[in-house]
Amino acid sequence: MWSDHINYSCSMKTHQLVLTWIENELSEGRLAVGGRLPAERSLAEQLQVSRTSVREAIRILEAMGVVRAGVGSGPEAGTVVISDPTAALGSALRLHVATQHLPVADIVETRVLLESWAVSHAKSDSPELAGAARLLDEMDAEAVPVAEFLALDVRFHLALADAAGNAVVSAMMGSLRESITGYASRLTGNLPDWDATAARLRSEHHGILAAVQDNDGGRAAKLVAAHIEGYYREAGVGPGVEG
Amino acid sequence: MWSDHINYSCSMKTHQLVLTWIENELSEGRLAVGGRLPAERSLAEQLQVSRTSVREAIRILEAMGVVRAGVGSGPEAGTVVISDPTAALGSALRLHVATQHLPVADIVETRVLLESWAVSHAKSDSPELAGAARLLDEMDAEAVPVAEFLALDVRFHLALADAAGNAVVSAMMGSLRESITGYASRLTGNLPDWDATAARLRSEHHGILAAVQDNDGGRAAKLVAAHIEGYYREAGVGPGVEG
Repeated sequence: MWSDHINYSCSMKTHQLVLTWIENELSEGRLAVGGRLPAERSLAEQLQVSRTSVREAIRILEAMGVVRAGVGSGPEAGTVVISDPTAALGSALRLHVATQHLPVADIVETRVLLESWAVSHAKSDSPELAGAARLLDEMDAEAVPVAEFLALDVRFHLALADAAGNAVVSAMMGSLRESITGYASRLTGNLPDWDATAARLRSEHHGILAAVQDNDGGRAAKLVAAHIEGYYREAGVGPGVEG
Repeated sequence: MWSDHINYSCSMKTHQLVLTWIENELSEGRLAVGGRLPAERSLAEQLQVSRTSVREAIRILEAMGVVRAGVGSGPEAGTVVISDPTAALGSALRLHVATQHLPVADIVETRVLLESWAVSHAKSDSPELAGAARLLDEMDAEAVPVAEFLALDVRFHLALADAAGNAVVSAMMGSLRESITGYASRLTGNLPDWDATAARLRSEHHGILAAVQDNDGGRAAKLVAAHIEGYYREAGVGPGVEG
C-alpha cells in the first residue's frame, strides 16, 4: 500500500500528492528511466484525485526533466520517465536570473569554480576529451559564423566538464551555461573586435586542452579561470563588476 | 507588444507560451519579486490560451520557486513573484537522485568542492558567520536529539556557504543538501556509535569555524573536505564507494 509509505498532510495540494507518489515509485525502483507512468485516468482513480491534478503534476515533472509526456493512443503513447537534470536546473536558474535574484557576476564566479575543478579532474584518455579536441578543429575552420563559434564554444566547455566524470558537476555546469546563453550571446555585441577575440579564444582553448592532455591539472585550472574571467572582463562584466 | 520580443514556434505547448511570456516580463523588469501576476482569467484572454494552460504554467513556476500561488479573492489574493531558487533546484536534484541518474557519490564530491570554496571565501566578520557560531553553541548543549543535531548541522553548513556571499553557490549548496536530506538521515542508522560521531562532528565544526575566523581559508577548506568525506566514509558511502 503506497499510503503506508507517504507522509502527506491534509493541506497538501492534490497535484503534490501525485508528485510525492511518483517520487516514491522512483526511489523504490518500481519506476525507472525508460518506464511509463500509468495512464492519466487510471492514476487519477488510483490516487483518488482529479485528472487535472494528474496533468498538473506531469507538467511539473516535464519541466523538471523527469518525464516526457506522450501523445496519441498507440503502443508508443504514455508518459515516459527520462533523466535530463541539466535542462531542469537550467530553466530554474534562468528564471531566477530573470528575477535578478541571482547576479550574473555570481554565475560567472561559480562557472570558474566548477570548470577549474573539472579540468583539474578531467581524464586525459577519456572519449569526452577526444570529442573536445574535435570541437576545437571545427572552431579553427576559416570564417565560422559568430553564432556557430559560440555554440561550439559552449559544447567544448561542457565536454571538458564531462571528462571529469561527475554527473552532478556536469549537470550544474550545463545549467549555468543554459541560464546565461541569451546573455552571453548579447555580450558579443560589447566586444570591440570579434576577430581578435576569436583568435585569442582559439589559442586559449588549445592551451587548456594541451594542459589536460599533459595531465597537468593545476595548469589547466589556472588557464580555464583566466580564460573565463578574461572573456567577461573584455565584455564588461564579471566578478566585481555589475552584470 | 510582447509578441515582438518572443520567439515562439507553432508546435509550442500553450502553457509554455505562458511561461515564456512571464519569463520575458521578468527579464524586462515589468514584473519583479513582490509583484503580482495578472488574474488567471485576464492572462488567459491576453495570451489567447485556456485558463487550464495558465494554471499549468503557474504550477510549474510554483515548483521552480518563482511564484507563490494565491488563494481567495481579497486584496491579498493573486499569484505573487518570489525568489526561492534553492527549493526549486533541490526538488529537481532530489527527483533525479530518485531516478538513480545522479549518483550519491557525485553529490558528496560536489558538496566537498562547493563547501571548500565557500569556507575559503567566507568573510570572517559577516553576520552569517556569527550565526554559524551560535548554531554550534546550540549543538554543544547536553542531550540534543539526533534529528535536531542533524538539522542544526545542515544549517551550520549553509550558514558557512552564505558567508562567502555568492548567491549561486548558496543555492546550489542548499539544493544539494535538500536533495539528500532523507538519505543523510537514514545514514545515521549505519553509524556504529552515534555519541562518538557527534563528539567528533562538534570538534570538527569548531575547528572549521576557527579557521574561517582566523582568515585561514586554506586550512578551513582542508578541514571541511576531511569533515564531509570522513562522515560519509564512516557511514559507508562517498566518492569511490557505491551510494
